[in-house]
This record gives sequence, structure tokens and C-alpha cells, in this order.
Amino acid sequence: MKLPEFEPTEAVLSGETADIYFARTIEILRYEGLNPVATMEVFTSRAGVLCGMEEVKALLVRVLPEDNREVWVLAEGETMDRKEVVLRITAPYQSYGLYETAIIGILAQCSGWATAARECGEAARQIPITSFGVRHIHPAVAGVMDYSAIVGGCAGCSSIAGARLAGIEPSGTMPHALIIIMGDTVKATIAFDKYMPPEVSRVSLVDTFKDEAEESLRVAEALGDKLSAVRLDTPGERGRVTVDLVKEVRARLDLAGFKKVGIFVSGGLDPERIGHFIESGALIDGFGVGSYISGAKPIDFTADLHEVEGRPIAKRGRIPGITPNPRLKRRM
Amino acid sequence: MKLPEFEPTEAVLSGETADIYFARTIEILRYEGLNPVATMEVFTSRAGVLCGMEEVKALLVRVLPEDNREVWVLAEGETMDRKEVVLRITAPYQSYGLYETAIIGILAQCSGWATAARECGEAARQIPITSFGVRHIHPAVAGVMDYSAIVGGCAGCSSIAGARLAGIEPSGTMPHALIIIMGDTVKATIAFDKYMPPEVSRVSLVDTFKDEAEESLRVAEALGDKLSAVRLDTPGERGRVTVDLVKEVRARLDLAGFKKVGIFVSGGLDPERIGHFIESGALIDGFGVGSYISGAKPIDFTADLHEVEGRPIAKRGRIPGITPNPRLKRRM
Amino acid sequence: MKLPEFEPTEAVLSGETADIYFARTIEILRYEGLNPVATMEVFTSRAGVLCGMEEVKALLVRVLPEDNREVWVLAEGETMDRKEVVLRITAPYQSYGLYETAIIGILAQCSGWATAARECGEAARQIPITSFGVRHIHPAVAGVMDYSAIVGGCAGCSSIAGARLAGIEPSGTMPHALIIIMGDTVKATIAFDKYMPPEVSRVSLVDTFKDEAEESLRVAEALGDKLSAVRLDTPGERGRVTVDLVKEVRARLDLAGFKKVGIFVSGGLDPERIGHFIESGALIDGFGVGSYISGAKPIDFTADLHEVEGRPIAKRGRIPGITPNPRLKRRM
Amino acid sequence: MKLPEFEPTEAVLSGETADIYFARTIEILRYEGLNPVATMEVFTSRAGVLCGMEEVKALLVRVLPEDNREVWVLAEGETMDRKEVVLRITAPYQSYGLYETAIIGILAQCSGWATAARECGEAARQIPITSFGVRHIHPAVAGVMDYSAIVGGCAGCSSIAGARLAGIEPSGTMPHALIIIMGDTVKATIAFDKYMPPEVSRVSLVDTFKDEAEESLRVAEALGDKLSAVRLDTPGERGRVTVDLVKEVRARLDLAGFKKVGIFVSGGLDPERIGHFIESGALIDGFGVGSYISGAKPIDFTADLHEVEGRPIAKRGRIPGITPNPRLKRRM
Amino acid sequence: MKLPEFEPTEAVLSGETADIYFARTIEILRYEGLNPVATMEVFTSRAGVLCGMEEVKALLVRVLPEDNREVWVLAEGETMDRKEVVLRITAPYQSYGLYETAIIGILAQCSGWATAARECGEAARQIPITSFGVRHIHPAVAGVMDYSAIVGGCAGCSSIAGARLAGIEPSGTMPHALIIIMGDTVKATIAFDKYMPPEVSRVSLVDTFKDEAEESLRVAEALGDKLSAVRLDTPGERGRVTVDLVKEVRARLDLAGFKKVGIFVSGGLDPERIGHFIESGALIDGFGVGSYISGAKPIDFTADLHEVEGRPIAKRGRIPGITPNPRLKRRM
Amino acid sequence: MKLPEFEPTEAVLSGETADIYFARTIEILRYEGLNPVATMEVFTSRAGVLCGMEEVKALLVRVLPEDNREVWVLAEGETMDRKEVVLRITAPYQSYGLYETAIIGILAQCSGWATAARECGEAARQIPITSFGVRHIHPAVAGVMDYSAIVGGCAGCSSIAGARLAGIEPSGTMPHALIIIMGDTVKATIAFDKYMPPEVSRVSLVDTFKDEAEESLRVAEALGDKLSAVRLDTPGERGRVTVDLVKEVRARLDLAGFKKVGIFVSGGLDPERIGHFIESGALIDGFGVGSYISGAKPIDFTADLHEVEGRPIAKRGRIPGITPNPRLKRRM
Repeated sequence: MKLPEFEPTEAVLSGETADIYFARTIEILRYEGLNPVATMEVFTSRAGVLCGMEEVKALLVRVLPEDNREVWVLAEGETMDRKEVVLRITAPYQSYGLYETAIIGILAQCSGWATAARECGEAARQIPITSFGVRHIHPAVAGVMDYSAIVGGCAGCSSIAGARLAGIEPSGTMPHALIIIMGDTVKATIAFDKYMPPEVSRVSLVDTFKDEAEESLRVAEALGDKLSAVRLDTPGERGRVTVDLVKEVRARLDLAGFKKVGIFVSGGLDPERIGHFIESGALIDGFGVGSYISGAKPIDFTADLHEVEGRPIAKRGRIPGITPNPRLKRRM
Repeated sequence: MKLPEFEPTEAVLSGETADIYFARTIEILRYEGLNPVATMEVFTSRAGVLCGMEEVKALLVRVLPEDNREVWVLAEGETMDRKEVVLRITAPYQSYGLYETAIIGILAQCSGWATAARECGEAARQIPITSFGVRHIHPAVAGVMDYSAIVGGCAGCSSIAGARLAGIEPSGTMPHALIIIMGDTVKATIAFDKYMPPEVSRVSLVDTFKDEAEESLRVAEALGDKLSAVRLDTPGERGRVTVDLVKEVRARLDLAGFKKVGIFVSGGLDPERIGHFIESGALIDGFGVGSYISGAKPIDFTADLHEVEGRPIAKRGRIPGITPNPRLKRRM
Repeated sequence: MKLPEFEPTEAVLSGETADIYFARTIEILRYEGLNPVATMEVFTSRAGVLCGMEEVKALLVRVLPEDNREVWVLAEGETMDRKEVVLRITAPYQSYGLYETAIIGILAQCSGWATAARECGEAARQIPITSFGVRHIHPAVAGVMDYSAIVGGCAGCSSIAGARLAGIEPSGTMPHALIIIMGDTVKATIAFDKYMPPEVSRVSLVDTFKDEAEESLRVAEALGDKLSAVRLDTPGERGRVTVDLVKEVRARLDLAGFKKVGIFVSGGLDPERIGHFIESGALIDGFGVGSYISGAKPIDFTADLHEVEGRPIAKRGRIPGITPNPRLKRRM
Repeated sequence: MKLPEFEPTEAVLSGETADIYFARTIEILRYEGLNPVATMEVFTSRAGVLCGMEEVKALLVRVLPEDNREVWVLAEGETMDRKEVVLRITAPYQSYGLYETAIIGILAQCSGWATAARECGEAARQIPITSFGVRHIHPAVAGVMDYSAIVGGCAGCSSIAGARLAGIEPSGTMPHALIIIMGDTVKATIAFDKYMPPEVSRVSLVDTFKDEAEESLRVAEALGDKLSAVRLDTPGERGRVTVDLVKEVRARLDLAGFKKVGIFVSGGLDPERIGHFIESGALIDGFGVGSYISGAKPIDFTADLHEVEGRPIAKRGRIPGITPNPRLKRRM
Repeated sequence: MKLPEFEPTEAVLSGETADIYFARTIEILRYEGLNPVATMEVFTSRAGVLCGMEEVKALLVRVLPEDNREVWVLAEGETMDRKEVVLRITAPYQSYGLYETAIIGILAQCSGWATAARECGEAARQIPITSFGVRHIHPAVAGVMDYSAIVGGCAGCSSIAGARLAGIEPSGTMPHALIIIMGDTVKATIAFDKYMPPEVSRVSLVDTFKDEAEESLRVAEALGDKLSAVRLDTPGERGRVTVDLVKEVRARLDLAGFKKVGIFVSGGLDPERIGHFIESGALIDGFGVGSYISGAKPIDFTADLHEVEGRPIAKRGRIPGITPNPRLKRRM
Repeated sequence: MKLPEFEPTEAVLSGETADIYFARTIEILRYEGLNPVATMEVFTSRAGVLCGMEEVKALLVRVLPEDNREVWVLAEGETMDRKEVVLRITAPYQSYGLYETAIIGILAQCSGWATAARECGEAARQIPITSFGVRHIHPAVAGVMDYSAIVGGCAGCSSIAGARLAGIEPSGTMPHALIIIMGDTVKATIAFDKYMPPEVSRVSLVDTFKDEAEESLRVAEALGDKLSAVRLDTPGERGRVTVDLVKEVRARLDLAGFKKVGIFVSGGLDPERIGHFIESGALIDGFGVGSYISGAKPIDFTADLHEVEGRPIAKRGRIPGITPNPRLKRRM
């Protein structure tokens, strides 16, 4: 995966998204004429996958003085331990103090998403996962969420913004709305096939009006070899997708000669349910995961000053001086 | 609270933040020449406080045809039941189909934040709460998060962006960084007092270098009547703020004649811990809540078509036709 | 309910179904010339509904000497407390000692069935329950099981033998086998309607080949006013019958004008699941309960001698003499 | 163990014990002139020991047309997995459709009993178990229950009917009633010894009137070498038989020179309590198990049509066509 | 209850039982010439019954200067809340500093015992309890333990030392050893009756050699009207005393005309088991409680200085100055 | 460790601390002229460390007739299994019957203390533990408690009496009272250093007035090389001592050049918390344990007669005759 170029927004650069007390701190220090070189370390509250560091670096490169800065980091996508230092900045404090909020906020939410994606991927073993959860978060973070999911190991994502950041094509099947507007799954699938460019996979959503097994056979018969897969997304009101349903649809497709038509499963998936499918031996060609990834709890990060003008210092509860971490690499 | 004017971004309007399959659906329907008037209902997956509706309305007013639309909503900040319909749109499907992702995404995350804020507020009874959690989320949603917290009942927030949206002044005390740079809590507090405009409350953070009780007396003696409050934010490594600590600091301040100096508590607070402080009878003047609100799980919403050209219809698992909800008001 | 006439079998009368040690005991007592008038009391190990007493009385009337016997009982269908005495026999011991096994065995299993039926009935409030569980027990007890279920409160049962004992008509819809043989639910329902006498309710089983909601509308349209109800029996592989499914089928039937077609629910029901349906407010016209009733744990009974020739006596752990129970009535 | 010859009863053959809807199905199919060759498979809902197959075969041999039938089975007493097919019938449907209820009912209850017996046997390791539970079930199934217990691994049973089916002698000690009638344990034991043929073991029940240790010594002194064992059956009111009691009785018998007198334990036993005795190292010569076996929950079986006239078919939730199971053997 | 006169031992007065650091503290203060009037408060770690205060007062009256002391206390046997101050001493520190260990140690263990006794008493309602636990603690505290039990509400105790302190007669029945030496319970009971003075109750221990019910009748027949009660003390190996045993012994005694013979229960009793007996309605005339009282966890007390020479002071975590408690009474 | 010489007190020898029924038993036996040689065995109710045997032997040597006694024991400090016999006395019963209460009482409480000490020691691995709990028990057992703690594996104890029995020097740091009286931790530490003999370790208690990290540096700077260790004893109101606090104090001392100053931890310790410190890798030089050891539940012991005049005998529930235990050694 090629890492994207991030560009800090004006709202971040101006300090508008910061906690007000950092703005006040910089103001006070300016009045007092205090701008010591200080070392800030950022550490994590729990283990996971680090994400957001590229965006943080893009911010730091804009604000730190080129001739008086040192930035050490763990790389995007690396695993991190609980309490591990993932970022160390040494520079005049006034140049970066205002951005503490943004720096740890970016890392918190992106790492939360990437870590949840990693958990799903581990449960799914070799089966690819597509991030489908953009519908459960604010559109302002749709892109970074899907990007983080891919850093965490997803093979694809449904949002155009996320796919662009991650340098891939967005993936998706068809919504229930298309089928309802057209009135029939087979009709909708045929229309999809007619108008979509050839590189888009034909994946038909088969739970809208009829039993999934019946509908799977209907669309397979209608599209023949062109049908890439069916997607099972049974709603909770109908008991969600079960292992037995997947096995039965697989058996009925095979019996009817559609051995090449894949099965894609979505709906309320999390690592536990994915693991359950995997252990059952049901043959599945892909999973779509929604709010388990997009609604993942952020991983809180903490930023602490550990040196001021070369002297070790720390607040109560923390250990003064540089925290050794040989995994950090200097990147600025 | 006066509701703000939201303005949809270009990324949302262009569909870039949408799930790709909605873009494809609109494309197919255009080719097919299908643009029926359709009714979409949005319902919630769990009870809570509705938030984000103002932003959704700002989007809808931009995209729906003025002469062929009907929009019914619950209002910003209202409580909603599990499975309750909170939004109903009737309009030509092509005008809004692309925005399903953004609509339910905005509602999901904003309602999640507002609901968590409400839970804290109920636990705190009359004691005001400030949202301090912007540091645990991506800066692109810093403003809407703090705005949602205030819709849910917080009295203040620390981000400038959030305060602007909510039409209030941002609140905050001082960061540990200021104290560490200046080398002493009393010195930092005096500097804060010297440069900050009079309308900013003097609240001193008293856990950086010394025991909180000792430091509270030192800053109270230094600032005298000008000190509004001390803020206790003891780190986990020192056992967090406890009921006994609050009671002792209160007693020691009183004993030394500082009865007017308030106590502000923060650090890892959630409704349970807040409730514990309240029930203990400790005299507290304010709480600061961070990731419990900002990291709140979004409340998933679902959007379903229930009528197409006036005919009741629905996917399996849903009931065709308009779902009655007398609480909805027509707003467009 | 009119109580049936039971007739003891030869296997019971001959002692073949008894524990061997009772046969040996009678033999020893005969050799010793001992045949004292003895009082045996039978008490229960847990609370429940008493059932089997009619069959026990039919046995006793055959074996006890008419001129030297006293039998006190609780009546068929009465509730009984834990440890309550439900039967007291005073007669020459040789006349009934051999039948202890049969007496408490009949009461144990019949009371277990009746008690389970009562629990379902209490959960279902006014909605009638049919016992469908004969398929999970040995056919030699098919009749007494269904009879006991009706004593416990079921409105009907599926076995011919049980219905005969209970003096009612057997109830049942149609099996999956009929539909599979005929190849289509609508065809099978029409054939059922064509050949069955008018007094048999037309209840169509709608989960065999298609989604239940779709199939319900198909059979309703095919039979019109003659259709009494549809039966939902969704298998575990499809998530069993859910509250939402019932509500949706009800709504779709109503929307299509079939307000008089009832809904009958079966499949893995127990008091907890029945209670869940009732509390949800779903409109249900009948429940079919299988192995919760037919596989109910028997309620163990214990038989103890408490008097021999008028002298109070008892084994260790029991209290000598007659145990007072004013609820007992003399019946022989 | 030599397998018995079963003979179907008239009530089963006439369909009286069947679910009414099978009788109706056969009637409809006759009217329609439909009698296709159909394949029915029977599978189990949980793992266990298969029992009842001999009785099922005796039924099938009576009803299936000799020249057009194929029956594949697992053998009596074999272990079976969850969801494993244990029986496959291919024959004209009208010949066997009526018997679905009886077939799976026989298997359900018999397999439930055999499986419970197997669990006890595994807990008891080498120590023999006698089935004593006929007193907790209806006498109509007394014989098949004890037969099933022996198929599951019990060494003996107390009912005459069960022993006959299993081709063994019934076992039993003496009831409390004999001792109470005779007024003393020693007197009763002497009478037992006097009248019983020599092949019946002399096992004395020692908890009726006195402490078990005291009574054990009394009967051992009275019978000398002829005493085979004492049976401890302490009632719940006296704390049931405990490990310490067994050890003490063993020690006191040994101390008095009765090393050959065995100890037989009964009363509320289940695999957990049996395992506890075994692990304690207490020397026990036999266990008597009652309602754990006789009141065992039946193991539900399901019968499904999988082929009709050679075409794979199945209801929703099941996979069409023959389910491969290499363990099945053709028996008809 | 008349409170006893306590007398401090030489070991306590000399400081030998103290923590060494108090001895050192007094030494240092003497060298430094520091002997300020200081106020020490003692508070409890959990709610309970205060005991040991009489012994503490006897110590203080010996060591505090008569003309410069103030001692405020809660009284012996009063209930105390968690964290309540139960003792406040104001005097020159050197006069009492050495005794902090002894003061809070006496209160800790005595209050632990009294509180456990109170719990038993509340469970037993009106039925008297005798403390039987001296056998589970060191004889050096045998007397104070039984005294504390009586302060907590016991009606009697078995140790001579405890009874002396409490100003009552010791109670007790007979040990198993007497019965074993004499070889028979009836013989031992007759000997007890023969030699003991008339004021000693005749209570026979009936579980040594025979079943309790049988033995109870034997001793009742032997002693007639002189027998006051039987004591049931069934060992764990025989299932302990159960509710059913008590009811049966009561019934058998009544049936035999011994309605005046009481029943005394002991063996592994605690408030839960006592409560179980009480709720069962079994007629019991007394309980004997052993290690639940004598092995009760001490209730930790803490001693803190709150004023030195009239100035409020306190260590971190405590509130400086006198803690108001209107329940304290001045006693010195 | 050299074992101490114990001397029975007059109160024990006179039987004053005994259960009254033993005094009565001896009286009855004297009247009856019965003084058989009897064997009493003492066994334990749970596994642990045996302690108190030296004190028991000192009693037995005083009361048993020199020419007619046999005493077999497990040694002080040995581990013992549940139900293991630890003491066997054979002698004329009148010589020792009165002392059953004292014998098993001494063993019960001392073994309880030693066992708790052993558990702490196992959790602490190589780190030495000091018993600090004398303040939570009655001073009459202060010495034997601390002695038992040392038998169980503690390296030191705080009471003078306990240290004397164990043949070691008492250990202790300084109480909060000294610091409060002197008004400052540094002043108190300097005074301690000034007056205490050189062999007493300089350990400063650093949580009284200031944050522990700050105070640790202050006392280290004041005493320099003479400071042996700081003791962390943070009260519950400040969150107790945490792993992070220990690590931070260690780091700050090291950073300031005080690598030789040790850290001693106390306050609410039990094996679980000690284990937590050990596993965390925090560098700790000693633990102080209080009420976990001193308030340990006694281990109940039972004394039974197993032979009278050479004949095996036992009460119900026990096995007559000598219980073999090859670990016992004859000691009298």
C-alpha cells in the first residue's frame, strides 16, 4: 500500500479545533518570553495498530522550525504495546504546543479504527474483508476511517473518499433501495450488469424480497457466468445470516451447477461472529464489516513533556527524561 | 441554546463521502429513466438523544426539489426510543438517494455523543459538566462532537470550534505543559492570572508536582480572592481523584479560609464514577468529562424505503407503508 | 373435561413392570405369613400439577380388597406443594406392595408433563396451546403424555391416542412432508382443503420453500376466506420464528386484506420464549409446543409406610404416623 | 448382549399413536394418487448413544414393501454425533409416512436413556451400575427404559420387564417396606436369606432404623459369609450417602473381619456425584442410579425428505439430496 | 450485664507488646524534649459492635496524667458506623504514644468477636446462643473472646475464664470423649446426672454411637423428667444437623411423650445456617456457635493525631482538627 | 531459627481457659474411678503450616505422667495436609483430658497465622516480609502472633514480644505520629538518625505531608548515604501504593543519584497485591504486611479418641483405631 499525502486543514493550523487552554498557554508563554526547546512524548493507553502517523507528520512538517526539530516515530500500521511511546518531538515548545489536541486526536481515532480492522482480519484468516461502516460515522471522517481500516488490513472499502486515500478502487454491491425501486432482485441485477463497466464485480444482494436460497438461484440463472457472487445480508428480524444458511446456499448453488458463484456475508459482523463462520467450515468468499470497525472506540493517547532545555522533568505519575524505545525511527 | 447554521461540504454534496453503491444506483436509475417519488424512513437502533438533525436538514434543503418534497423530523436534542422513526423524506429518489450514507452517518455519531453527554448529566444532577474529550477524536469532527455534547446537556466544552457551533465561550483551565514549562504551579497560575482577560475564570491545575492538598493551599494563598477553583486531575498512576481526596481538599481549603475556592474534578470520569462522587456527598463545583463522551459508540441508524409512488413496499423484515409516529413534525 | 376410564394392563397387574425386590418382598411375606394392614403415603419432590391419579385409582380398585381398604387422594389436575402427601392407602400390605413402582411411576411422568404444560399455559395467558411433542417420546406413552398435557391446560394435542383419552378431537396442520411430496405449498394447501372434512381447520404451513411472508400471501390469495391460519415454524437454520417475523406477516396479511387469517407459531417453544412473544405484543392465535412438554423431567414421588397395624412407624428421616393433609379426599 | 426381538403394537401400526396430520397426509395423497418413492433421513439434535433402532427396524420390516425398499442405519448402541444421519429410508412414501412420529419418538426417548446411562458408566469407570429408576416413569415404558439403560452400559436393572428384553436377570436388594413390615433390618435380612434361591445375592439395606455403620455390623454378624453386600441409601434428610460414610463403613467392616462384604451405594446419584465418589478413592462395589437415567431428557430427532423420485429436494434450512454418511449400513 | 474490672498486664505497660517504632518514637521525643498535648482519634474500618473499650479505659487510667487528660468514648457494646470515631484522647503525647498498638489491638479483636456474635443473635431471633469457640483460639485470649461474645449478645459461653469476666456461670453439655471413655451415651448421661450438682442442666449429646433419633429416645427413657435437652452435633461426615433431622427428633420425642425435652443444635453454625433453621420453623431450644465467633476477622481500627498543641493537623488523606461526633461521652 | 522455650501459664494449667465440660468430665471420671489409657488424635481442617506445637509440647511435658505417655507430633513449621493427624497422645485420660481446649486452640490460631505468612512469602518470592499486624489483635497474643508469622516465613516483625520469642531483633521504621509531632518528615528523619543506635536501619516514612516522590528526594538529600530506604504507605484515601508509584520513586531516586536507597512498601497488602507488585517488575526491597497475617482465620483442629485401653473405638463419622501417618515423630 502506497501511503497518501495528507494536508493539514486551515481549521487545524489555526488552532480552532484545539482545546482552548493550549491557545492560552501559547499566549502566556509569548508574553513571558518563554520558548524553551521541549521534548514531548506520546504514548498509548492500550495495545493495537498505530494509524494516523502520516497525517500527524504532515502537520508537524508544516509547523516545526526546520533547523531546530527532531521527530521520532513508529510507522503507520505498526503494532504498538500498551504504554509504548509512539512519537517523540523535540523542538521549541511554542511551535507545536497548540497542536497537542490534534496530534493525539488523529492518532486516537485512526488507531482505534485500524485496530478493530486488524481484529476482524485475524478472525477471518485468509478471507478478504471490506469496510462497509461509513454509514455509521460523520461524513467529515468517512475518508480517514476507511483509510485506517485498510491500514489495519481490510482489502477494500465502500467509500469513494476512503478508497482515494488508500489508493484503491472502492467496492460495493448494490443497496436494497435499488432493488426496491426496481421491484425485483433479478431485474435490478440485470440492470446493474447492463450499465456497470466490466471491471465492476457483479455481486447480487439476495435477501430483499424472497428467501435467500431461492433468490440466489434466480439471479444465478439470470446472469449465468457473469455473476461473481451473491451477498447475504439477512436482517436481524429474520435471524441474521447463519452458518447453516451459508452452507445451504452453497449446496443449492453447487447442485444447480453454479460452483463459481461466490458468497459474500455481511450484517452485524464482529470478530467473534466472523470466527464462528470460519470455524464452522462454511465456504465464504468475503465479509463486509460495518460498525464494528467504524464505531470502534478510539485508543486514547497521552502527551507528556519529559525534557525542557535538556533537563529531565515530568509531572507526578510519570518518569522524567526520555523513555527509551529502540523501535522509534527518526523521521524529521 | 440557539441552533447553528450548518453548511454541507463539497465532499458530501459531490457524493465523495458516500458508499460507492449509491453512486452506482443513481447512475443505473438515470440510465433506466427511473426517478419515482419514494419515501425513506430512518429509525434508530437504540434509545438516546437525537442529534445531527440540523446538519441533515441543511443538506436536504440543498438537494431536494423545492416543489416536490416532504420532510418530517424529530427535533435536535429530543429523546428517541429504540426503533423509533426520526426522519421521513418523500421526494424523487434520485434527488436524495446518494446522501443516505451521509444522513445516517451524521445522525449516528452526533446522537452517540449527545446520548453519552446526557448520561453524564443525569449522573451529575445539578453539577455542570464540561466536555474535555476533543483530544481523543479526529480534529475534523472536533467541532460537531463538542456541539453534540452541549446538545446532550454539557454546560461547556474545551474546543474553540465546538464552542463556536454551540454559540458559547470555550472553557478550560491550564494544561500540565504550561506548568512544566514554567516549572511551578504557583508561578504558572500567577502568569495565567496576569495575562488572561478578566472574564476567563482562574482555575488552577494542582496535581502536577506536589500533593494536591498542599498545592491547593499554595495557589489559594498566592491568588487569594481571584482564584475561582482548583482542578483535581490526579493520574491513574497516583490512584485517580477519590472521594476522600475531594473531601480533604475541601476541608483544608475551608480551614485555611478559602471557602469560595471551588473544586473541579476530571480524569477518567463516566456516569458511574460521577454518580459515585454525587452519592458520597463530596462538594464538587464541576466535572470535566473526556473520552466517555468523545469516544461514545455511534448509535446506528437504518434507512428504509417504505413507499414508492404511493404504494406501500418494504424489504423482508420490515413492514410496508408509512410507520405512524405522531411525534414527527413536518419541517420542509 | 370429562375424565377417562383407565384400565390397567396385564404387564402391570402381573408385576412384570415392577422392581424385582417388591416381587421378592411379597414372596417373603407370604412365606412368613405376614400381611398386616399398613398405611402407605406418597409425597412429591417438587410443586406442580398432579396427574396420573385416575390411572392409579383404576389400578387400586382392581387390587385392593373391597372390604378392607381406605384410599385418600388429591384429584387429577390439582396443584400440589413440594413434599405434599397426594395419596394415602390403608389396606393389607400384600394386596398393593407389588404396585409401588407402577403407582409412583405413573404419577411421576404424568405430573411432569402436566406441570410443564401448565407453565406454558401461564406464559401464554389467553392464547391456546396445542401439544405437538408426541414425536419426541416412545409411542407406548404417546396417549398418556398428550392426555396429561391437556390436564395441565393445553387446548389440544396432535396424537389421536391422546385426544381419545382426553375426549377431544386431535389437532394438526400439515407436515413439511406433504408439501415436499406435492412440490409446492399452495398446491398442498389446496389439496388439503379439497379432501378434508369441513370441520378441520385450514391451517397452512408456510416455511417450506419460500420466505414466510411471501408464502403467507400466496396461500391466503389461493384459499381466500377458507384459510383459517398460517403456521410459522421457521427452522433454527433460518433463525427460528421471531417477534418481528410475526409482526411483519401480520402487517402484510392485513395490508392485503386478510385480517381474518390467524397466525399460529411453533418451533422450539418454551415458557420463556412464549412469554417473550406475549410481552412483545405480537398478535398470535395459537402456539404449538413440542419437547418442552413431552420431554419434561418426571416429578419424582416417594412412597413410605407410616403405620403398620395402627402403630406409627417410619424409616429414619421420616416422621412416624399419618401426615395430616386436609386437602385429601377419600375415594375408596 | 443379544439383541431382543421387538414386535410393533397394534396402536402403533394403526397410526393411533401418530400425529393426526400424518394420517391426513396419507389420506390426501391417496386421493391424489401420489405415492412417489421418497427418501427420508433422520438426524439427531445432539451427540449420544443411539438406541431404539432395533424396535424401529421391527416396525419398518412390517410396513415397507419387500421389493421396493432400502433402509440404512447406524446400529443399536453406537455413538452418534450432533446432526448425524442415523437412519435413511427409501420406499414409496405412503408405506411409511404414517410412522414418522413413532420412528423418531422411539429413537428419541431410548437414545436419551442410553446416553444418560453411558455418562454414568463413564463416571463410574469399572464399577458396575444398576438401573433403579423404573419407579420414576410410566410402567408402559418400564421395559424399554431399562433395556436402553443396559444398551448404554448398565450392568443390571431392577425391572423384570427390562431384564427380559435385555436377556439378563433382574437385580435388586430389598425395599424399606420389607424392613418396616418386619420391624428390624436383621430380621428382614435373615428372612430374605431363608426364602430366596441361592443365586440371588444377599444385599442388605442398612439405613432404615439405625445408623448405617452400626446396622452394617449387625447384619454382617447375623449372616456371616452369606452376606454379599450392604446397600447405603441414606435419605436426603440425613445428608445422603457421603464419601466419609462409605470409608467409615468399609473400615468398621474390615476391623470386624468382614472384608468380603461389599458396599453398594444409591440415592440421588448422577455422573458428577459418582465421579466424586470415584475420585475420593472410597471402595465401592456397585452404584444404583435412578432418575438420572429414567428421567433423562429425550434426544430430539428430525426426519426430512431429501429425495422424491430420485430428485434432490429439501425444505428451507436443509440441504437437498442424500447426506453422505459412510458409517451407515444397509439393513433392509 | 455488669461490666468487669480489667487490669493491664505488665507486658502491656512495659511496651513489650507494642510495635518497636513507638518505643523509639518516645525515646526520640524525650531526647528532643518534645511532649506536646496531642489529640489522637481512633476510628473503625467497618460497622459493628464496639467491644474492648472497658479494657482500654483501664489502661488509659493507669498511664494518662490525671490533671492533663481528656478521654471521650463510645460505650462497650454500642453499635458503631464505618469510619466513626470511637475514642478521642487529649493528653501529653509521651504519656500514651507507646500504647497505640495495644489500644487499637484490643478494640480490633474484641469488636470483631462481638460483631460476629451480634450477627448470630440477629439470625437466631429469640433463641439463645452459647459461645462454644474457645477451642479454636489461643488460650491467652479465651476469656476476652467469650466475654466479647456475651457483649455481642450471646446468652452463655463454655469457658470458665470468659464466664468469670462476664459475671455468669459457664455452660456446656458433655464432650464426645466422656461418652467414648464410658462406652455408651446412656451410661455417660446417667453418670453425669449422678455427680453433677442440681443447678447444672442435664443436656445429653446424642450423636456419638447411634443414630440421633434412636439415641434421643434412649436417653429420654433413661433420665425421664430430669433430662433437660438433647444436643445434636452431627459431624460433617454424616451430613451435619439438618432441618429435617431436628423436626424428626422433635416428632419422635413428642410421640414418645417427651414433649419437655428440648433440642440444642451445634456444629458449623453461622448466621446463614442459623437463619435457615429459624425460617424452616424447626423447634429449637438453643444454638451453640463455635468458630464463626471465635475466628471472626478483627475489625481494624486506625489511630490518627488530629491536633497538636491545639492546632489542627493531619497526615495526607485525613482531615485536620477534631472530627465531630456527638455520640462520644467524656469518661476521663 | 532457634525454637523458644514456652512455659504454660497458670490460667491454662488450672483449666480456667478450658471448656467447662472438660472440667466436668474429669470430675465424673474421678468419681467413677475411670482413668483408662486413651489415645487422642488431633487433625486439621485444612492444609497449611503447622505452628504452636512447641507450646503444646511444653504443656504436655508438664501434665502427662513421665512413665506412661507416648506423644507423636509433626514439627513446628512443617506443612500439613487437610485432615492430616498432626499430634497423637497416648496416656491416662485424666492426665490430659482437661487440656483438649488449650491444645487445639493453640494450634488453631498459630497455624492460621503461620499459614497466612507463608502465603505472603510465596507471593513475594525472594523479597523479605516484615509482620506489621500486631496492632490489629489483642496484646495478650501479640508475641505468639509475630512468632508464628516468623515460623511461616516472615523475615522480621514489629513487636518486641514477638521478636524475643523468635530470637531476633524487632524491626520498624517510624510512625506517622512522630512526623506529625515534629511537623516535618525531614526533621523527624534527622532526629531519628541522630538518636538511634547505628545498627537500626534508617527507613523514612514518606507519605505524611507531601507527595511521596517529592518527599523521598527531600529525605534522601537530607540523610545522604545514611538513608537505608524510604517506606511507601500511601493511605486508601490517596489510592494506596501503586506499581507506577514505586517505579516512579525508584526512577526519581536513581536520577538524583540515590541508587542505594531502597523502597519498602506497606498498606493493605495480601498475597494477591504482593504478587501483582512482583509480576510488574517494580524494584521493591521489602514488604510490610499487617492484618492479612494477624487477622488470619484460625485453622480449626479436631481432637478424637481412637483407642481406649488398646481397643480401637471412634465416634460416628470417624474411623476407629490409630490413623497411620509415617510423618509423625515420637517426641515424648
